[in-house]
Amino acid sequence: MNFIDGGVTAPKGYKASGIYAGIKKKRKDMALVYSEVPAAGAGVFTTNVVKAAPVKWDIKLTKESKNIQAIIINSGVANACTGEEGWNNNYLMAKAAADYLHIPPESVYTASTGVIGRQLPIDVIVNGIPKLVENLDDTKEAGTLAAEAIMTTDTYAKECAVSFSIGGKEVILGGMAKGSGMIHPNMATLIGVLTTDISISRELLKEALKENVKYTFNMISVDRDTSTNDTVVVLANGMAGNNMITEKNEDYGIFCKALNTVMTRLAKMLAADGEGATKLLEVTVKGALTWDDAAKLSKAVISSNLVKTAVFGSDANWGRIMCAMGYSGVEFDPEKVDLYIGSENGSLQLVGNGLTTDYSEKTATDILAAKEVKAVIDLKQGSASATAWGCDLTYDYVKINADYRS
Amino acid sequence: MNFIDGGVTAPKGYKASGIYAGIKKKRKDMALVYSEVPAAGAGVFTTNVVKAAPVKWDIKLTKESKNIQAIIINSGVANACTGEEGWNNNYLMAKAAADYLHIPPESVYTASTGVIGRQLPIDVIVNGIPKLVENLDDTKEAGTLAAEAIMTTDTYAKECAVSFSIGGKEVILGGMAKGSGMIHPNMATLIGVLTTDISISRELLKEALKENVKYTFNMISVDRDTSTNDTVVVLANGMAGNNMITEKNEDYGIFCKALNTVMTRLAKMLAADGEGATKLLEVTVKGALTWDDAAKLSKAVISSNLVKTAVFGSDANWGRIMCAMGYSGVEFDPEKVDLYIGSENGSLQLVGNGLTTDYSEKTATDILAAKEVKAVIDLKQGSASATAWGCDLTYDYVKINADYRS
Repeated sequence: MNFIDGGVTAPKGYKASGIYAGIKKKRKDMALVYSEVPAAGAGVFTTNVVKAAPVKWDIKLTKESKNIQAIIINSGVANACTGEEGWNNNYLMAKAAADYLHIPPESVYTASTGVIGRQLPIDVIVNGIPKLVENLDDTKEAGTLAAEAIMTTDTYAKECAVSFSIGGKEVILGGMAKGSGMIHPNMATLIGVLTTDISISRELLKEALKENVKYTFNMISVDRDTSTNDTVVVLANGMAGNNMITEKNEDYGIFCKALNTVMTRLAKMLAADGEGATKLLEVTVKGALTWDDAAKLSKAVISSNLVKTAVFGSDANWGRIMCAMGYSGVEFDPEKVDLYIGSENGSLQLVGNGLTTDYSEKTATDILAAKEVKAVIDLKQGSASATAWGCDLTYDYVKINADYRS
Repeated sequence: MNFIDGGVTAPKGYKASGIYAGIKKKRKDMALVYSEVPAAGAGVFTTNVVKAAPVKWDIKLTKESKNIQAIIINSGVANACTGEEGWNNNYLMAKAAADYLHIPPESVYTASTGVIGRQLPIDVIVNGIPKLVENLDDTKEAGTLAAEAIMTTDTYAKECAVSFSIGGKEVILGGMAKGSGMIHPNMATLIGVLTTDISISRELLKEALKENVKYTFNMISVDRDTSTNDTVVVLANGMAGNNMITEKNEDYGIFCKALNTVMTRLAKMLAADGEGATKLLEVTVKGALTWDDAAKLSKAVISSNLVKTAVFGSDANWGRIMCAMGYSGVEFDPEKVDLYIGSENGSLQLVGNGLTTDYSEKTATDILAAKEVKAVIDLKQGSASATAWGCDLTYDYVKINADYRS
């Protein structure tokens, strides 16, 4: 498996576009991803009780539609808490794209991100669709334009792709994502779009997506706020020409590994580019009795405001890590815990059997001053482990969110 | 029931002191509260798996000791994650105070607050105890000195007291608390000390404390971090001379009301003085099916970083409130929700049946610019309600916590 250049347009048969339609003040605000042939589609969506109209629409399509062929996305307005008018606007958006693409509206996923409680400027959106369709292209650049058009407070576009082999055929999986704020486990990304030319049954595609979301997008947090709009969808159009995967055989395993690789990379980009973030924080809990325990513990640590501010200040205040583990809801023996930190600047054990080691604060601060900081926590109880990704909490997070709408 | 001046020294028979012993760089760091006669004691403690040595000691005493007569508290070092040495140091602190007071160590509650993972400077503490005991006094000023000595990042001392009548006898209940950071429901205060001269059985005192913590200290949050050291204790020394309360009669009801009054006032002070906070945020959810639902919803709202930053920016971004409610774990119908905000600057309905009203952003911003901001959310499902208190998330929270230890 190799990383290759590009994102959603990397696999065979996919085109994308990203344009400025006028929803936002200046930046690009509409994206389209299109498969030349009908594709199997699957999605995983927010667990929030308050679900945006596009999320409700995609859930319906995931249940009822045999094929998905396009995804239309707008940024600037989330189309959440918008009632019947919001539902109708969402349908108009899907329908307008479908009409121009000559496909049924029920094969068009939708996604929206931005301010909650405001109606979509549906005329602006419908007027933008002809240009969006005209601009569709299978180049790497077209994929990047789409990835840019879905950004809100993201500071850079997030894309990646891998190439791998199934039964002698080259298969490609690409993806793009946007995150930044309102990011927390239980569908951590706001919007993630994955495209692949693999041939796989809809049922297995769904299962593979769901299983891998658990280890990737659901293992990141920016601010503990689970959005109303979280959406990750995947299309598989079969154009790689492999024998269709219809059972959990070796090929399925290879595909899952590819999904995990792409989604992990995108998840880490989302965490690193959390609102106001200056650092990526990776926390691995090992020696746990179960994966669930290790996941809860690592997520509690990366989610703690106190840990996040300490990381921002490069302060090795490990008591806050122990504290966060303590309220995670997992039982463990604090007096067995070993804790290590590491980065490109070195590594250091801070805690042995629950007590401070004789470490140098200076060395610890140097390690924590890096752009990517890791913590490894060993519970010494079992053999399960899990990794979660977060970011530091900074002045800029406050600044961005104290005045997001203006 | 009337609020009166003073705090822990307001009821009959209580003395207090607060001194600088040398644990911290400059500010007062040791406090003592003492009852002239043995008192019934009760406590409620952190649910964190990682429990500080003083918490473990107090839990033991609450189970095993018939009487409690003093509480000794230090700030600067939390004595958490300190193993056997920490346990022994905690005992030495209780014992030294007990010896000078000529009472058994098993009648002395302890509490510590400050940095986790560091051992108590036990010599400094033991050396400070003679002065701490000598300074004991029943004046209002002595109570304030104690309230000041338990502060960490608090910006002012938190005390209050009420007077009420039981069977013709005047009874007084006083209290002090410290909070500021690592504050979240499930024992939200770091340290709260309540004193009363009421005569009540130990069992009922315990029950009354536990029940009222639920509606007061457990309904506040500063940063969602449940500390390792959270401790609320109450002493009742019987010197008011009322007939001892041994059953849940009318007198018990009056005492519970007094407890609720004092603890609510202290809880609101803790929320308003959260680290870096500039505003108190009070959120009431009504029209819920159960109190538990209303409590979960209101706590989710006051705990959300995105709501807290919006309040800091006086931005009526109500979608974040709906979003926080949506991930609280409570089922409700978003399309029934009404939402109002209010302050000394007026009040305004932002949401009706889940949709935005035609409100003026200018008016909303004016309302949110006040020091105390309220939100009332009506689910229109049932008749239960609950109130939670929080604060805004500001640059100063980040500043304080990025470099807490230096």
